[in-house]
Amino acid sequence: MAGLSAEVAAVDVGGTSIKAALVGDGGALRSVQRPTPAQGGLPVVEAVIAAVAELGGQPQAIGLAVPGIVDEAAGTVRHAKNLRWEELPLAAMVGGHFGVPVGLGHDMRAAALAEYQLGAGQGAPRLVFVGIGTGISAAVVLDGQPLNGSAGEIGHGGAASGELCACGGLGCLETYASAAGIARSYTSLSGREISGAAEVAQGVQDGDLVAQLVWTAAVNGLARELAGVVRLLGETRIVIGGGLSLAGDTLLSPLRTAVAELLTVHPIPTILPSAFGDRAGIHGAALLARRSLRGSAPQTPC
Amino acid sequence: MAGLSAEVAAVDVGGTSIKAALVGDGGALRSVQRPTPAQGGLPVVEAVIAAVAELGGQPQAIGLAVPGIVDEAAGTVRHAKNLRWEELPLAAMVGGHFGVPVGLGHDMRAAALAEYQLGAGQGAPRLVFVGIGTGISAAVVLDGQPLNGSAGEIGHGGAASGELCACGGLGCLETYASAAGIARSYTSLSGREISGAAEVAQGVQDGDLVAQLVWTAAVNGLARELAGVVRLLGETRIVIGGGLSLAGDTLLSPLRTAVAELLTVHPIPTILPSAFGDRAGIHGAALLARRSLRGSAPQTPC
Repeated sequence: MAGLSAEVAAVDVGGTSIKAALVGDGGALRSVQRPTPAQGGLPVVEAVIAAVAELGGQPQAIGLAVPGIVDEAAGTVRHAKNLRWEELPLAAMVGGHFGVPVGLGHDMRAAALAEYQLGAGQGAPRLVFVGIGTGISAAVVLDGQPLNGSAGEIGHGGAASGELCACGGLGCLETYASAAGIARSYTSLSGREISGAAEVAQGVQDGDLVAQLVWTAAVNGLARELAGVVRLLGETRIVIGGGLSLAGDTLLSPLRTAVAELLTVHPIPTILPSAFGDRAGIHGAALLARRSLRGSAPQTPC
Repeated sequence: MAGLSAEVAAVDVGGTSIKAALVGDGGALRSVQRPTPAQGGLPVVEAVIAAVAELGGQPQAIGLAVPGIVDEAAGTVRHAKNLRWEELPLAAMVGGHFGVPVGLGHDMRAAALAEYQLGAGQGAPRLVFVGIGTGISAAVVLDGQPLNGSAGEIGHGGAASGELCACGGLGCLETYASAAGIARSYTSLSGREISGAAEVAQGVQDGDLVAQLVWTAAVNGLARELAGVVRLLGETRIVIGGGLSLAGDTLLSPLRTAVAELLTVHPIPTILPSAFGDRAGIHGAALLARRSLRGSAPQTPC
């Protein structure tokens, strides 16, 4: 099958940076990263095209993993707030430029699919991938199929009091349990500016009491959320990705304990770190590219 | 197709009562109800057989909807605490007695399937059926398939403080938002014994402040749970069944408002009462019976 041995370009379009990789049979041949143009709109599309061009090589297809509301079948981004994209036919724009098939997908669902097919989610009938970075969102994969639409947007809603969130809600999980929220909470309590959540994770190890307070609040919030996942879906594997997952056992050990304490009649879930760290989106984009190659091949009738 | 026009016997085996109906093309021809033997075990099986026999008629198949952990393919009840059943080959026992095929299923999943195929869940790609009676549990139906195992057991776990629950947890939804929990909370606060949650619902209408307090706590707990369902699954239709659903708009109006207030980026779900009141389990059992008839017919190869 040609699609499985092709060289493809994979792009993960984030709110902060655009990561791209030329991927062959043996993995990434070359990677580039550039900042996402802050003004959004067409300059972001141009930056995506420039990143693919910079990779060089002979990609036979391109995979694009993007945030927001994505119509994967139509190849269109319906709405991506941070990128200021509205009803953008991104697959056609990028495909038209390079003359190859383009697979477009939602970043979190693409990352979840990478974990399911190649990473920490292999063989799990029910998998929830939780990406914790600037924000928090999840993808729910049942029998290999991610749920679409607004499924998994667990960073927002559900609480009635707490800090005001960008979404307009109060006390959303994102406000205190995302990497950005943890860093903000630490600065707010300690009065000290820090570089990010990794510094808080280090403070937890070093016995910094403010860091421990902020971290425990984040862990307890994530644990309530994950216990809710298991109470609704039953036996589920949970994979934690995104920047915060790089904290490793500083995050996962107390999280596993807290989730187990919240469950009574349900099986304790297996909670694993992403096999790809903060690069699950790139791996997912490569899968989207390969799928677009298969999609353009003649179908065998049933 | 013979299976679609057959007369079948449908039995909903509950912890308090066994409801049975002889069901033809036009609906129930005859219904019987008898108390569930309190000692559990084999006497419950005998009572199920007696209920089917009492229905008379010529049922061509029997459907059994039961609580607990059910192996639907094997026709076995693995574990049903209230009925004191362990590894019970119920389908073979009842089928052997009457000499007809038996379809065995989990009561909540069967009820959800009835709503999906014939009731308030028709046409919904994602449906969550929540049964609120003595306890609280739910069934999650995605593309017509209910999730199995411990999925939907939302009555238990998830909280870290509150009243001690039978499951060993603290502050479980069941302790204060089930019909039994609402009645217990009312008695505990008012010192007055009552017949059940229906009396509390009436008190809400009549301006009884204790009733309003207890009811609001239940509604808010259910709303947090349902908001969590939508945050994880995205666009979802929610159908409320079981005894408490008979309270109608006294329950549904404040529940819809409270769920909407907890959601920001997600679509507000449609929340409907069960089309079958507290008889969704019986309708589900009839579907299980019809399915067992199709299962025993020769299969057409693909």
